[in-house]
Amino acid sequence: MPPFRLQRRVDFCDTDLAGIVHFANFFRYMEAAEVAFLKARGLNVHVDWNGDQLGFPRVSVTCDYVSPARFDDLLDIDVTLDRLGGKSVTYAFAFSRNGVPIARGKMTSVCCRVGPNHAIEAIDIPPELRTRLNPG
Amino acid sequence: MPPFRLQRRVDFCDTDLAGIVHFANFFRYMEAAEVAFLKARGLNVHVDWNGDQLGFPRVSVTCDYVSPARFDDLLDIDVTLDRLGGKSVTYAFAFSRNGVPIARGKMTSVCCRVGPNHAIEAIDIPPELRTRLNPG
Amino acid sequence: MPPFRLQRRVDFCDTDLAGIVHFANFFRYMEAAEVAFLKARGLNVHVDWNGDQLGFPRVSVTCDYVSPARFDDLLDIDVTLDRLGGKSVTYAFAFSRNGVPIARGKMTSVCCRVGPNHAIEAIDIPPELRTRLNPG
Amino acid sequence: MPPFRLQRRVDFCDTDLAGIVHFANFFRYMEAAEVAFLKARGLNVHVDWNGDQLGFPRVSVTCDYVSPARFDDLLDIDVTLDRLGGKSVTYAFAFSRNGVPIARGKMTSVCCRVGPNHAIEAIDIPPELRTRLNPG
Repeated sequence: MPPFRLQRRVDFCDTDLAGIVHFANFFRYMEAAEVAFLKARGLNVHVDWNGDQLGFPRVSVTCDYVSPARFDDLLDIDVTLDRLGGKSVTYAFAFSRNGVPIARGKMTSVCCRVGPNHAIEAIDIPPELRTRLNPG
Repeated sequence: MPPFRLQRRVDFCDTDLAGIVHFANFFRYMEAAEVAFLKARGLNVHVDWNGDQLGFPRVSVTCDYVSPARFDDLLDIDVTLDRLGGKSVTYAFAFSRNGVPIARGKMTSVCCRVGPNHAIEAIDIPPELRTRLNPG
Repeated sequence: MPPFRLQRRVDFCDTDLAGIVHFANFFRYMEAAEVAFLKARGLNVHVDWNGDQLGFPRVSVTCDYVSPARFDDLLDIDVTLDRLGGKSVTYAFAFSRNGVPIARGKMTSVCCRVGPNHAIEAIDIPPELRTRLNPG
Repeated sequence: MPPFRLQRRVDFCDTDLAGIVHFANFFRYMEAAEVAFLKARGLNVHVDWNGDQLGFPRVSVTCDYVSPARFDDLLDIDVTLDRLGGKSVTYAFAFSRNGVPIARGKMTSVCCRVGPNHAIEAIDIPPELRTRLNPG
């Protein structure tokens, strides 16, 4: 299966005084790509699932920066399902611009039931949700 | 009464490629100053008030930029109570660095009861809360 | 002339604990709409103009919030040229979602020549640039 | 040598609709701690060094999230020098609140000479700068 791709235009406010996209903003882009990936599968980072509120808080993220991105660049963000665990899912992200590698990242999210007052409890990913994540 | 003052150091990530603090970040600074102002009066932007959850969503904000702020600047943010209405409160903010004016802003927040699912309803500011906001 | 429209999807990270888009982020959206408006006219917030680097730092912004915006909302942002002064340009922004008003804002930017070390000097908007901004 | 510690108050705008600090903001906090660490050694992320402009763009970052941080939390951020390479420096960050672990991160920055138009070139860390980073 080819990777899922989101395109994202770099906003002016995403840059810093070094003239490049601030490194922390790549995680905002990863999240937008994760959301688009999930929505393409009828899911989202917060979903109502048979009456439960499910969320996917992140437990681990990484990013390696290869080449700077700049204001108004149109970035291609390719998302692949890197690993599907019992309670967690790991995505891999490849950022490029016109085929030139910009950055690579990973993000591991844990499936959680969200209770009152934002309390969260990790749970096994429900089977139908697993199938949507990885229809393979 | 002298204005309430918060000092704030400009983070690297608050700048943009023009080498100055991005204009939208002044609203993040105003919010931090508003919170510090409220905390000095035993309040906050979200408070438990006799069993009700009260919040102060903003309904109107302005900012005039006089001189750029830069990375690592230590900004003085003076907060004054500009107007106390029945349901709303307006703050005025003056930003300066070593006495040099940087920006001026205003923010009007409305007192709201927060219900389930983040539903909000504007209410009269409770009398004791008014007194704390404006002990004068 | 109908207003220029940009559509913008609300990112998860644009929300705050009140469950709505944080008020400061509307200025990031305005900037994105300003950039799109300028690009549709062959301009941008930073342009090389006959060998000069021109920028448009903001000198004044306002926003009035009518109704909350939430995660994943698709916002329509209508941009109109509100006023074209000698050195400055003022844009008006109307935010809506499916026709429901969300917010209104204004932004005044000043045409500046950018020199070394990010030094800026306000200048008259060059005639051809005026024509592009306001093709009348 | 005990780790260098920066304290940081969580801003309201740093939270998201899950009611916790958005994961990307930990990288903004790491950067603030890196800057404070460098300043305590007479350095910074952008320095004028014998006439050269030196910067430290990041090439790799990670963060593992242990427990959520919330609005108004006072976070302790401990910084240690994890590795000092020929051209790069790696910092380790430990986030806690009243001794409770919140998150752990790493950041690798490369010493670069910054030329005109934000062009950057990786260079060996100058000896005196090495000594300041790691007075050993």
